[in-house]
Amino acid sequence: MVKAVILGCTGYTGVELIRILATHPEMVVSGGASRQWAGRRASEAFPFFRGHCDFLISDMEDVLREPQADVAFLALPHGESASAIRPLLDAGVRVVDLSADCRLRDPDVYSEWYGPHKDPGIVDQAVYGLPEIHRDKIRDAQLVANPGCYPTSVILGLAPIMARQDLDTSNVIVDSKSGISGAGRAAKLITSFCESGESVKPYSVLRHRHIPEMEQELSGLTGRPVSVRFTPHLMPMSRGMVSTMYLRLKEDVTAESLREDYERRYGDEPFVAVLPDGHFPDTAHVRGSNMCQVAVTVDSRSGWAIVVSALDNLVKGASGLAVQNMNLMMGMPETAALDTLPVFP
Amino acid sequence: MVKAVILGCTGYTGVELIRILATHPEMVVSGGASRQWAGRRASEAFPFFRGHCDFLISDMEDVLREPQADVAFLALPHGESASAIRPLLDAGVRVVDLSADCRLRDPDVYSEWYGPHKDPGIVDQAVYGLPEIHRDKIRDAQLVANPGCYPTSVILGLAPIMARQDLDTSNVIVDSKSGISGAGRAAKLITSFCESGESVKPYSVLRHRHIPEMEQELSGLTGRPVSVRFTPHLMPMSRGMVSTMYLRLKEDVTAESLREDYERRYGDEPFVAVLPDGHFPDTAHVRGSNMCQVAVTVDSRSGWAIVVSALDNLVKGASGLAVQNMNLMMGMPETAALDTLPVFP
Amino acid sequence: MVKAVILGCTGYTGVELIRILATHPEMVVSGGASRQWAGRRASEAFPFFRGHCDFLISDMEDVLREPQADVAFLALPHGESASAIRPLLDAGVRVVDLSADCRLRDPDVYSEWYGPHKDPGIVDQAVYGLPEIHRDKIRDAQLVANPGCYPTSVILGLAPIMARQDLDTSNVIVDSKSGISGAGRAAKLITSFCESGESVKPYSVLRHRHIPEMEQELSGLTGRPVSVRFTPHLMPMSRGMVSTMYLRLKEDVTAESLREDYERRYGDEPFVAVLPDGHFPDTAHVRGSNMCQVAVTVDSRSGWAIVVSALDNLVKGASGLAVQNMNLMMGMPETAALDTLPVFP
Amino acid sequence: MVKAVILGCTGYTGVELIRILATHPEMVVSGGASRQWAGRRASEAFPFFRGHCDFLISDMEDVLREPQADVAFLALPHGESASAIRPLLDAGVRVVDLSADCRLRDPDVYSEWYGPHKDPGIVDQAVYGLPEIHRDKIRDAQLVANPGCYPTSVILGLAPIMARQDLDTSNVIVDSKSGISGAGRAAKLITSFCESGESVKPYSVLRHRHIPEMEQELSGLTGRPVSVRFTPHLMPMSRGMVSTMYLRLKEDVTAESLREDYERRYGDEPFVAVLPDGHFPDTAHVRGSNMCQVAVTVDSRSGWAIVVSALDNLVKGASGLAVQNMNLMMGMPETAALDTLPVFP
Repeated sequence: MVKAVILGCTGYTGVELIRILATHPEMVVSGGASRQWAGRRASEAFPFFRGHCDFLISDMEDVLREPQADVAFLALPHGESASAIRPLLDAGVRVVDLSADCRLRDPDVYSEWYGPHKDPGIVDQAVYGLPEIHRDKIRDAQLVANPGCYPTSVILGLAPIMARQDLDTSNVIVDSKSGISGAGRAAKLITSFCESGESVKPYSVLRHRHIPEMEQELSGLTGRPVSVRFTPHLMPMSRGMVSTMYLRLKEDVTAESLREDYERRYGDEPFVAVLPDGHFPDTAHVRGSNMCQVAVTVDSRSGWAIVVSALDNLVKGASGLAVQNMNLMMGMPETAALDTLPVFP
Repeated sequence: MVKAVILGCTGYTGVELIRILATHPEMVVSGGASRQWAGRRASEAFPFFRGHCDFLISDMEDVLREPQADVAFLALPHGESASAIRPLLDAGVRVVDLSADCRLRDPDVYSEWYGPHKDPGIVDQAVYGLPEIHRDKIRDAQLVANPGCYPTSVILGLAPIMARQDLDTSNVIVDSKSGISGAGRAAKLITSFCESGESVKPYSVLRHRHIPEMEQELSGLTGRPVSVRFTPHLMPMSRGMVSTMYLRLKEDVTAESLREDYERRYGDEPFVAVLPDGHFPDTAHVRGSNMCQVAVTVDSRSGWAIVVSALDNLVKGASGLAVQNMNLMMGMPETAALDTLPVFP
Repeated sequence: MVKAVILGCTGYTGVELIRILATHPEMVVSGGASRQWAGRRASEAFPFFRGHCDFLISDMEDVLREPQADVAFLALPHGESASAIRPLLDAGVRVVDLSADCRLRDPDVYSEWYGPHKDPGIVDQAVYGLPEIHRDKIRDAQLVANPGCYPTSVILGLAPIMARQDLDTSNVIVDSKSGISGAGRAAKLITSFCESGESVKPYSVLRHRHIPEMEQELSGLTGRPVSVRFTPHLMPMSRGMVSTMYLRLKEDVTAESLREDYERRYGDEPFVAVLPDGHFPDTAHVRGSNMCQVAVTVDSRSGWAIVVSALDNLVKGASGLAVQNMNLMMGMPETAALDTLPVFP
Repeated sequence: MVKAVILGCTGYTGVELIRILATHPEMVVSGGASRQWAGRRASEAFPFFRGHCDFLISDMEDVLREPQADVAFLALPHGESASAIRPLLDAGVRVVDLSADCRLRDPDVYSEWYGPHKDPGIVDQAVYGLPEIHRDKIRDAQLVANPGCYPTSVILGLAPIMARQDLDTSNVIVDSKSGISGAGRAAKLITSFCESGESVKPYSVLRHRHIPEMEQELSGLTGRPVSVRFTPHLMPMSRGMVSTMYLRLKEDVTAESLREDYERRYGDEPFVAVLPDGHFPDTAHVRGSNMCQVAVTVDSRSGWAIVVSALDNLVKGASGLAVQNMNLMMGMPETAALDTLPVFP
C-alpha cells in the first residue's frame, strides 16, 4: 500500500481526504499533522474515526523532518503550504498541494492577490491539477497544484466552449453559488448557522482570489486573454457549488451543436457528466461524489450561451480531485476510491 | 376600518397578507376565499390564526357575488385571477391582483407565455404596481397588477441605471436566486425538503415567465428595447431572493458616481435601501420586512456594472408590495403596516 | 414615550428587543450599549437598522453612570448583568434582566451552577418574570428576572398539571429541542453552519444550567419538591424550541379532562395557546411571535401524560417575554408590540 | 457476482440500496422495479445513475414472474411487500423486506396497527433483521424482516440495559427525532421545504406504528413485557435520527458501570460505537454511514438512566442494514460495502 500523509488533517478537506482514502484499494493514510491537534489521536478530533483511521496526529515540523510516507496531501492555508513543499519533495515524497500557493504561474500575480510568496522558486515545478485539461503532465509530476473549487467548476464548465473561435473572450460572466464548507472550518460569525442559514449573499465581489486563477487557465485554453466578471455567493447548505456562466458567441450556434461539442470533449471523462437537453445540474445530485455535472444551452434571441456546472466543493472541488491527481501521479487507476454515487438525498 | 377580502387566503401569499394586515391601523381582513378550505374557519387551516383572524373561509363564487369588502387582494394562480377581477371592479371594490394576469400589456405576449387570457379587456385598466416607478398612477388606480417577485427584484435593482444613455441595453444579464416559498404551497417533489434541502439548481432556464415582464418594464424605463438573459435558481431556504445583474456601460464610470445615481434616485424611498461601499445585500437582512436592499459596483477593468438586490419574495416580492399598493390606492400612509424591521436571525 | 436602553444591544436578544420595540406605541429605544461596538452607530453593526433605530452605541460604563432612560433591558451574559443592576435601580430605572443572575433565589444554588454571584444582595429584589405565573408581582416590580428559554417552555407546559395532587413529582422528564440562536451570537465551531446543519445532538446532558431554575419554579407551583430529568438538544434551525414532557399521574385521567385543565388555566392568557385534540405544537407556527403553543395528551395504557410546548426562543423565550414583563411593570397594555402573527413560512 | 433486484427502486431507500451496492465487491444490482417508472431507464429517474447503474426499470409483476436475480430487496410500502414475498421465495430468491409486513409476529397486532395482512402465513418464515440481536438466525434465513428506523435506533440503544434485572420495564420513555427522508419520497405538504424547514414538531403521538415493533423486540430481550412511551419528532434535515431514552433502574448504578455493560455488549460489533464519557451522538457524525452511535449516562440524583443513539435513517435505519442482513444471509463478509466513513460535514 502506498502511504499517504495529510498535512492539515482536521480541516474539512483533510477529513474528506481521510474519508475518500479509507476506501482506496492501494493507498492508506499513515499519518496526519495539525497544529491544533498535534499529540492527540484522530478519533479525539473526530469520534467517527475510531476503528477506521486512528493515527496519532503529528506536529507539522515532525512530518516535514521525517515524512514516513510516499505521498503527501497539503490541506493547509496558502502561505503555510509554500514552505512545506520543498522539504517533502527533497525527501522524495510526491505532493498534491490543495492551497493556492502553486496555482498561479506569474509570481507578481500571486503577490498581488495573496501577498509575498514564501518560496516562489517552487511554482515552476508544479502542474495545475485538472486532469481533464492537463492529464498527461499530471502523470509525470512530483508536485501538483490542486485547483480552487470555483476555478474547477468554471474551467470544467467552459473548456469546450473556450476552443471556439467565435467566442467573445472579453465578456465572460461567472455567477457562482457555494455551500458554506468552502469557507473552511474555523469558527467565524459569517459562517455561523444563524447568520448563514436562510441567507443568500454575494461576497468578495470583484475581489475574490480565484479570479486570476480562472483567467490564467481559461486564457491558456483559448490562446487569447480571457477576462472574467466573477461573483461568488454563499448558500445555506454545507456542500455544493453551482457556477452559472454567460458567454457571447459571435456566430449563430444552436444549443444542440454546442452540446455536441461538450459531449465530444467529455465523452470519455469519468468525472464530467454532460446533461441531456432540458436537464440542469443540481448540487444534490453530486453531493459526496467526484462528479461534475455540466449543461449548456443557447439563447437564440441574443446569441449568448449559458453554461451551468455543479460539483461538490469538498470532493471534485478539493479532496476528490486531489485523490484523482494522486492516482494519476502514482500510476494507479484514475478512478480508484472515487467511483461512487452521490449521497442522495 | 377599510374591509379587505383575500381570494386565495390559504396559500403563502394569502397567509402573508393576513400577517401584515393584522398590524394595519386602518385596514382589516374581513374575509377570505379558498377552494380547498371553503366552509371552514381560518384557524382550521392555520392554528396560529386562532384569536387573531378567524373568519369563515368562503367559496370563491360567494365572494365574487357579494364581496362585502372595500378592497380585494387576489392571491390566485394566473388564469383564475383574470375571471375574478371584473365582478369585483363592478361592485366598486379596489383590486390588487398578485397573479400575472394584468402585468403584460401586450395580449400576444401574455398568451405566448401563459396561454389564452380569460378577460383580455381588463388589462388596460391595470396599473403595474411598483410604487417606486408608477406611484402616481397607482394612487388613482382601481386595479393594480402586483409585479412578480423576480421582476420586482430586477426592476428595483436596475431602475437608476436604466436612465443612463451609455447603457448597452441589449446585454442585460440577470442571475437570480430564490427561496422555495416562491414556488407556492402545493406539495411538489421538487420543493420537498429532501429534494430542495442542500440543493442549489437552476430551473426554467430561458423559459421563465417573468422574462417578458422584466423586459416590458425595463424597456419602459429606458425608452429602448431591453433584452434580458435570465436564469433563476432555487435555494435551500424558505424566503428570500437575490438578483445579481451584469450590465455593460459604454463609457467609463466609477462605482462611486453610479452609487450616487442610486442614492439620488432612492433617497426618499421608504422601502429601497442603497447599501454603502463594501456592503452587499443579504436575504437574512430583509426576511419578513418590506425592504429591498440594493448595492452597485463597477468592474473598472471591463466597464461592466454589477448590481445586486435582495428582498423577501413573500413581502416586497408579493404581499408587502400588495399592501403598499393598496395603501396608495386608498390614500393611506404608504408605509402603514409595513414599517417593520427584519426578523433576524 | 418611555425611553428604553438596551445593554448588550448587538447580540441576538438585543437585536430582537430592538425589532419588537420598533413597533411599540409607548416605548422607544433611546440607546444601547455594547463592549465590542461602542462608539459606532447601530446601523454599522446591522445595516438593516438604518432609518429605523440608528443610535450611537455607548460604552456599558457610560450607560450605568448616566442611563438617560426610564427602563433598561439587560441582554448580557450572566455575571455581567449582576454588577449592572444596582446602578440602574439606584438611578430609578426599571430593569428586566435577561441573564440568569436574578433567577435563582438560593445563592448557594446559583454559585453551584454559575460560580460566585457578583451581587447576591440584589436577588431578593427580583421577581421571576413569567406573567402567566407571577403577573401581579411583576406589575409592582422594579427588577424582573427574565426566565431562561428552556424554563419558560417547560413551566408554561407544566403549570396546569403541577396543580394536580395525583402527579408523581419525582419523575418529571423533559426532552427539549432548541434552535441554534439559543447559543448566542459569538462564533463557535459547534454553532457553525457546517457542524450544526443537518445535525441533531444532545448537549449538556444532566448538566444544563436551566435545571435548577425549572425545579425551583415547578416546586413553587406544586408545593412539593420537583425533580427533573432534562436533556436539551440542538436542532438545525435558527429559532424555535420544543419541549416534550413526560409525567406520571397516579390516578386515571383522560386526555380530555386534562386538556380542560389547560384550557381553564390558560383561557385568558394572550400568549399561551392550548391546541385542540389531535394538534401538536410546531416551531414554524410561532416563529417571530410571542405565542407559546401547548398540547397535552395521556397514554391510557400507562397513565403517563405527555405535554408538548413550542415557542420562539428569541421571542417568548427571551426578548418578547422581556417586553411583556416591562409592559406590566410600566402599567402599559400587556400585549403592546407583541400582538403579532408568526412569520410563516 | 450475486445478482440483486430492488423492488421499489425509485424511493429513497431504493436509491440508497443502489448507492451502497454500487461499491459491493460481490453483489451487483441487476434490475429494479417501480410502478411509476417502469419501462424507463434508471438514469431517467435519477440522472446521476448514468454510467453507474443504468438498468431498464421493470414492472413489479414482471420481476415477480421471473426474478432473474439471486436476492431481492423489497423497498415497498407495507401491504405491497406482503404479496410480493411468496413468489420470490418460491423462485428460490432470498428476500430482505424493508417494509413492516413481516416484523410483527402476532398477526392481531399487525392488523390492529396496519390493517389486514395480505399473506399472514409468510410471517413465520421471517427473521427480524437486527444482526446485533439475531445474527445467527439471519445467517440461515431465506426471508428477513428489516427493522423500522425508529426500532433500530431504540433497540440498539437499549439492548444492553434490557438485560438488567433492576430495570423498571414498565416505564421506558423514548423521545425520537428524525430527518425528513424517513417520511418517504412522495410529495406531501408536511414534508415540503417551507413547512418542514425551520420546523420541529412531534407527530403520531402515541399512535406511531413502530411502537408494537419496539415493544415486541424489547420484551424479547428482557423476557418481561416492556411498555414504551414513544414520541417521534420531525427535524429540519434530510437524514439522521436521534433517540433519547429514559429508563428507571431500581438499584444504584454508576454511569461508568453501565457504560461498561455497553462496551462489553458491543465491543465486537462493527456498526455500533459506544461513545466515551462526556461524548454524545450526533447525526452529522453518522450521515451516509452504517454506524449507530450510542451513549449512556445515569442521573445519580434519581437513578434514571439516559441513553442516546444516533444513526442515519436511510443507512443503518434502512438500506445499509438491509445490505448487512443480506451479507449475512449470503455468507459474505458482514461489512462488505458498508465499511465507510460518514460524509462530514
